Amino acid sequence: MRRCIIAQSGGPTPVINASVAGVLMENKLNGYYDEIYGGINGIEGILQEKLVDLSDMDEHAINNLKYTPSSGLGSCRYKLKSSADSPEEYKRLFEILDKYEIDAFFYVGGNDSMDTVSKLSQYAEEHFINKKIIGIPKTIDNDLIITDHCPGFGSAARLIATTALETYLDSTVYSNNGVFILETMGRDTGWLAASAALASIDDKPVVDYIYLPEKAFDKEAFLRDVTRTYKNKNHAYIVVSEGIKDSEGNYLSEISPQGAHDNFGHAQLGGVAGYLKSLIVNSGITSRVKTLELGVIQRCGMHMASSVDIEEAFNAGKAALEYAQEGLSGYMVGINRVSNAPYLSELFLIKASEVCNKIKHFPAGWINSEGNFITEEAISYIRPLIVCESGTGNNYIGIPSYYSIDKRNLVTK
Amino acid sequence: MRRCIIAQSGGPTPVINASVAGVLMENKLNGYYDEIYGGINGIEGILQEKLVDLSDMDEHAINNLKYTPSSGLGSCRYKLKSSADSPEEYKRLFEILDKYEIDAFFYVGGNDSMDTVSKLSQYAEEHFINKKIIGIPKTIDNDLIITDHCPGFGSAARLIATTALETYLDSTVYSNNGVFILETMGRDTGWLAASAALASIDDKPVVDYIYLPEKAFDKEAFLRDVTRTYKNKNHAYIVVSEGIKDSEGNYLSEISPQGAHDNFGHAQLGGVAGYLKSLIVNSGITSRVKTLELGVIQRCGMHMASSVDIEEAFNAGKAALEYAQEGLSGYMVGINRVSNAPYLSELFLIKASEVCNKIKHFPAGWINSEGNFITEEAISYIRPLIVCESGTGNNYIGIPSYYSIDKRNLVTK
Repeated sequence: MRRCIIAQSGGPTPVINASVAGVLMENKLNGYYDEIYGGINGIEGILQEKLVDLSDMDEHAINNLKYTPSSGLGSCRYKLKSSADSPEEYKRLFEILDKYEIDAFFYVGGNDSMDTVSKLSQYAEEHFINKKIIGIPKTIDNDLIITDHCPGFGSAARLIATTALETYLDSTVYSNNGVFILETMGRDTGWLAASAALASIDDKPVVDYIYLPEKAFDKEAFLRDVTRTYKNKNHAYIVVSEGIKDSEGNYLSEISPQGAHDNFGHAQLGGVAGYLKSLIVNSGITSRVKTLELGVIQRCGMHMASSVDIEEAFNAGKAALEYAQEGLSGYMVGINRVSNAPYLSELFLIKASEVCNKIKHFPAGWINSEGNFITEEAISYIRPLIVCESGTGNNYIGIPSYYSIDKRNLVTK
Repeated sequence: MRRCIIAQSGGPTPVINASVAGVLMENKLNGYYDEIYGGINGIEGILQEKLVDLSDMDEHAINNLKYTPSSGLGSCRYKLKSSADSPEEYKRLFEILDKYEIDAFFYVGGNDSMDTVSKLSQYAEEHFINKKIIGIPKTIDNDLIITDHCPGFGSAARLIATTALETYLDSTVYSNNGVFILETMGRDTGWLAASAALASIDDKPVVDYIYLPEKAFDKEAFLRDVTRTYKNKNHAYIVVSEGIKDSEGNYLSEISPQGAHDNFGHAQLGGVAGYLKSLIVNSGITSRVKTLELGVIQRCGMHMASSVDIEEAFNAGKAALEYAQEGLSGYMVGINRVSNAPYLSELFLIKASEVCNKIKHFPAGWINSEGNFITEEAISYIRPLIVCESGTGNNYIGIPSYYSIDKRNLVTK
């Protein structure tokens, strides 16, 4: 009996199940393994022998899973210690894999999961254990290095850009409009907030300013920006990443009234929009400031997923199975962008040890000199990743193309 | 030269422009009017002669407008006084219509707009002014009487139900899940919150409890509900309308919860979801409570619009033009549901005076006896309104049909 197991870790994405579906479908087509198990709640659940048998899923079920958001097998936030610090955990894990006759372990996750892949594969190698460990990347944050981008990002970016466009239209309907602030996720990196730059009408971005964690937030410059734009247009649309920091590296959300800490002592982010609102109101620019925290929608909104993203996540799952079959271990599946127009990508192998515990920041060169928007080059990077072949309504492919009535061209008589 | 004018009022919806597109398209096909003007920012802008000429829009542009959310002509919240209290305003308005040779006025809006339609048409009749005033309903709140439902509601309901489904999946991924609270709009009525009942997996609703403004909120019953469900499932999913009130009619969103302070000693302010969160945390059920205020997305999310809703809004615009052409005035276009399966509706006329200043509440008989969910009959009412013929991903028609892996069916060995 040959078995493999797949599990998921970290925050959900709209396409994390597509990678599981890819593993299942590739095995269905090739029959490499007799059975495929799913580990419930990631490595944490596997250590408790929480395993389910996914072998009975037929093609219809696999396809349905492919288009289901969030972690279908459950998730965990479990950081494996080093084998020196916690040898019994490693022993226990490989005992369980032996007990269930599992030859290969596929782990879909971000940074911490790739750390797990790296540690487990190294342990296996050192102990002459013939089990293959392969990582499949997922993170809406897009912060894994070496790979061009991460499955999950394109779908989140498409949702964010579309929401920015639609809420921009909503925020400009009255004769006396105020300031609108959209807050996105992104604790350490600005990829998500940056994607709002793709919201445009008549090829012009609707977002006035985007503030990213990669650029220290300058309160005075911010208030100058908003004052100028509000005077000019009686409106300003601002996008901000939850993780923006001041010049001393403090999260602004922590000095906001909503600041708090989660159970792990991490600063509980969110609420930076409220902080910016209070800056604007207190400065006397306007009291009409609306904020919207997108929250978890951006990491589970399959209804706005990019089909490019879904297919890449699916193919990464398929490739992982092939790599394990070829005898490889300790690698993460990476994505290489071959060309932008037409968009083409290919998968390749990256040593998990090279990826884990590193962060790919939004490049400094892709932020404009004022530090309040992104460059054309950055937009060109994001654009092909948010494509969906079928849409609702006006059948938009990337984000919707909406009509704008010129309200200034008044009839005179 | 024969002209008509169309304007929009009140809060935006995803389909309020579809009604404008309907008026424009019907005239393009029949040539009733030589020119069609748009009034900018509703009646408020018309009184300032803020008019634009929409006659040049070709079929492509009209179709693009049809699928553009929010009020393309701008909006206002302007309550016209009675003609006795403000005769000069009425005089001024009809002078402007005369000046621009405008024979008919179409007003897309909710309750207040129908009040305007009623007052203006009555004034015209009393003063022997031959101008036709027709109202076209729009409100995501679905609170206009006589009409079966209102354009705008179906699209908002579809977005809410889909978001509930996706955030439910997101909120159940960890082994230790908490309580999730989704707050919808609906200050006076529960139609929007109720629509979350359509979020289901394997034909079972994923939402545990829905609290509506039509039922006085009972704190003790609420805490009993949540305690029981949380103990049972280690999770609870709650949907609440922003407008829920206590038994004395006070909005709960205005009550500052006792003892709820953040790390900085500030009183925890915010929406009603925040209030429910503090009730749960303070009662000791769990400290893991996540809230999501959907905010303006629910009234501008064309990307999740229902095609049934778009077409009804479009057809209501077309019908309004026909009614004016037939010489009618002082009416609102209503929707009559002919059948549920297959869903069929027809348009009919309602005197605007009968609709304005009244509210259609969510029926008491459609709330369950515990006051924390809605009945099957209510679900049957909403279901056909959230249909969209083309979807993303798994090509869902109403809301997505997602796959659920049974995480309890563990392998034993």
